[in-house]
Amino acid sequence: MILNNGRFLCVPVLLLLIIVGMAGHAGAAQTLRGTGDLGLIIERASGSLVVVETTSHTALGRVEGLGDLSHASAVFSRDGRFAYIFGRDGGLTKIDLLRTEIAKRIIQSGNSIGGAISQDGKLIAVSNYKPGGVRVFDAETLEMVADIPATMEDGTLSKVVGLVDAPGQKFIFSLWDAGEIWVLDFSVGPEPGLTKFKNVGRNPYDALITSDGRYYVAGLFGEDGLAKLDLWHMDAGVTRILDGYGRGEEKMPVYKMPHLEGWARAGDYLFLPAVGRHEVLVVDASTWREVKRIPVHGQPVFAVARPDGRQVWVNFAHPRNDTVQVIDVPSMSIIRTYTPGKAVLHMEFTPRGEQVWISVRDEDRVDVYDTRTMQVMRTLSTQKPSGIFLTARAGRTGL
Amino acid sequence: MILNNGRFLCVPVLLLLIIVGMAGHAGAAQTLRGTGDLGLIIERASGSLVVVETTSHTALGRVEGLGDLSHASAVFSRDGRFAYIFGRDGGLTKIDLLRTEIAKRIIQSGNSIGGAISQDGKLIAVSNYKPGGVRVFDAETLEMVADIPATMEDGTLSKVVGLVDAPGQKFIFSLWDAGEIWVLDFSVGPEPGLTKFKNVGRNPYDALITSDGRYYVAGLFGEDGLAKLDLWHMDAGVTRILDGYGRGEEKMPVYKMPHLEGWARAGDYLFLPAVGRHEVLVVDASTWREVKRIPVHGQPVFAVARPDGRQVWVNFAHPRNDTVQVIDVPSMSIIRTYTPGKAVLHMEFTPRGEQVWISVRDEDRVDVYDTRTMQVMRTLSTQKPSGIFLTARAGRTGL
Ligand code: DHE
Ligand code: DHE
Repeated sequence: MILNNGRFLCVPVLLLLIIVGMAGHAGAAQTLRGTGDLGLIIERASGSLVVVETTSHTALGRVEGLGDLSHASAVFSRDGRFAYIFGRDGGLTKIDLLRTEIAKRIIQSGNSIGGAISQDGKLIAVSNYKPGGVRVFDAETLEMVADIPATMEDGTLSKVVGLVDAPGQKFIFSLWDAGEIWVLDFSVGPEPGLTKFKNVGRNPYDALITSDGRYYVAGLFGEDGLAKLDLWHMDAGVTRILDGYGRGEEKMPVYKMPHLEGWARAGDYLFLPAVGRHEVLVVDASTWREVKRIPVHGQPVFAVARPDGRQVWVNFAHPRNDTVQVIDVPSMSIIRTYTPGKAVLHMEFTPRGEQVWISVRDEDRVDVYDTRTMQVMRTLSTQKPSGIFLTARAGRTGL
Repeated sequence: MILNNGRFLCVPVLLLLIIVGMAGHAGAAQTLRGTGDLGLIIERASGSLVVVETTSHTALGRVEGLGDLSHASAVFSRDGRFAYIFGRDGGLTKIDLLRTEIAKRIIQSGNSIGGAISQDGKLIAVSNYKPGGVRVFDAETLEMVADIPATMEDGTLSKVVGLVDAPGQKFIFSLWDAGEIWVLDFSVGPEPGLTKFKNVGRNPYDALITSDGRYYVAGLFGEDGLAKLDLWHMDAGVTRILDGYGRGEEKMPVYKMPHLEGWARAGDYLFLPAVGRHEVLVVDASTWREVKRIPVHGQPVFAVARPDGRQVWVNFAHPRNDTVQVIDVPSMSIIRTYTPGKAVLHMEFTPRGEQVWISVRDEDRVDVYDTRTMQVMRTLSTQKPSGIFLTARAGRTGL
């Protein structure tokens, strides 16, 4: 009888433990599950994010308390379990996607713009506007392991943009105010090597690295053109490409910087949003020459290739940001125009390209499109969604 | 007191449940963990496999009872939790990597050679020698959803090789005896569409699909050349490339078929093992012309590009299979020759390329190389290891 009673009493205790365990931070189920189909959506106004999965397209839970996410991006640990969120306020937060909770959080600067994770997954680098420079942290503990101020010749600090990771434990970034590209190399020992390329052009505003990690290309806001560095031949220095692509033509006001990251390469071509023009530039990836300009609905913000390179999806800057256009790569023409609603901010493909997730900030919605039928297959309601990041980025260079 | 007693009794019951839960099939810890850094090693003689992780390079557990794995390969579910193993005896086994146990197992044919997973992760296709054809299964339940016998004009069945998945819910494969390439299309409805390309060349023995999923290339054993299909322009049919690459020169005996899968593309080039020659062929990926032949140590079996495309690692057929050579892509020359030991069977890179795992069957060893220092960083002892497969394949086309 005592034994029976013992057993009986045991049940609620056990259940309670399981429920507490499952609740995580935000009530999400903490069952054993793979992480290959996970992702997160930044909720820019509320300093929160939603953890999602792309197999049945559901939200697994919300994580709050991430500070100012008015401009935020993310990278993932190599096992796909943790996300590192770079907030606008210099916050660096490590999220446990399986427990839907914050694993660690620090404020590492006064104003940051983005970040990257080293090839071996052990280092997190953050690019800062204030104080201008890059800080590098241990991915496990978030302890700082290196501080690289972006000191210019006059002694002041430059804002840093376009930070990416590259093969061989490298980080590459650009100095907005100085017009320089720096390569930080953690393969050489505890003290990283630093190589500086000067006079690369005025005001680099963002950059991309090709998916093989070979070419780093920075967009120049102060000039018509881009700066390119071949990481296999660093001695050849930085060269200019697409020089003067807008010269002699009337420039339009720039309401929003175009962004260069994402899957810019489709087959033999790179698709780049032009600055201050309603055009996507098509660049031959072997000659680095412009081969075509595709007129589009507005100033493009992101031009992202479907992973198979057959389509490029484009969103636009205010005031034309209610629209998404799809470029067909073989014909290099627009085959579809959607108007999902006000403030389409970001687009993210699943790694094999069958879905694309699109955030529509002012409608508090993320739409999931089937890229074959070209129909919306699911809608998730989220609060002021902006960036969408899937764990498949963990296995890619520069994302 | 009764309450106390109840609580006290509760503890062992609770612990027992946790331990049973954690034990899994093979004693591996079943703690909450990401699946992005998991993989498995086929143990070909014992019908078993070892689940491994690439962050600290450890084995998490062994799964036994997989039948004849004397030639086996694997694909992964889109969440990275499950592996599907294609055994030589027609066995199709679904493995739960987190629990280190068999989730489901069927014998689907008398003799099978490989398999693939559909773009949406819902279908598993297996290529069979006996009965010759392809069978397609529900990834969740392993129930058969389609049976496609490879019927030739004379009514007999052909062996099927070179089965890959392609964008748009397609599977592509080649008929060894018939010299045909077939495209199976599950995007059109419950009954798949089937397109046949005839007279593609004698005895296609294996195939690859480029990582963007656009070109399917089958090696021809009966002819000097390869058959290429552009999936973006199927109406253009199958064309021949590298025709007569060995013509007029003395052929060597083929002890082992070269294999074509893996990361064959490095930058602008494809690196292909030649049939019956001690050479790796370099093909320009835009013109599909041979640009160079690199003399190597023996008949190459696998030529696998490091994900950044800067190196290609090559292993060899018996009797020269104790060696691995590394080709430097920029200079197209061999920069390193290793002799890991007898019967080097397979090589698998981590998705960002910082490690390569190499199986040395007759030494019961898998060596993990750091691809930057070019040193062995870890050795795992396993029983007669052959194929090595990492979950990062889940996010790729054709792997
Ligand atoms: C330099 C830079 C990066 C690359 C960081 C890195 O990886 O090192 C970046 C990344 C990003 C990324 C990460 C892209 C990725 O795919 O990794 C996203 C989603 C993003 C969404 C926006 N950005 Fe971004 N962004 C800027 C700059 C940048 N944004 C601006 O200067 C600008 C115009 C003004 C600002 O607020 O700083 C700006 C406004 C926006 C937006 O309005 C967007 C569309 C929506 C939002 O933030 O609410 N930016
Ligand atoms: C057609 C074919 C495939 C592609 C399957 C698919 O994905 O549809 C394949 C895949 C494979 C793959 C999967 C490659 C991948 O990266 O996906 C591996 C590791 C592999 C290791 C070997 N193969 Fe393989 N292999 C053959 C054929 C093939 N092997 C042969 O005809 C041959 C010569 C004789 C045989 O036993 O069938 C042969 C011997 C071997 C070996 O001796 C290897 C090196 C070691 C072993 O099996 O013990 N084969």
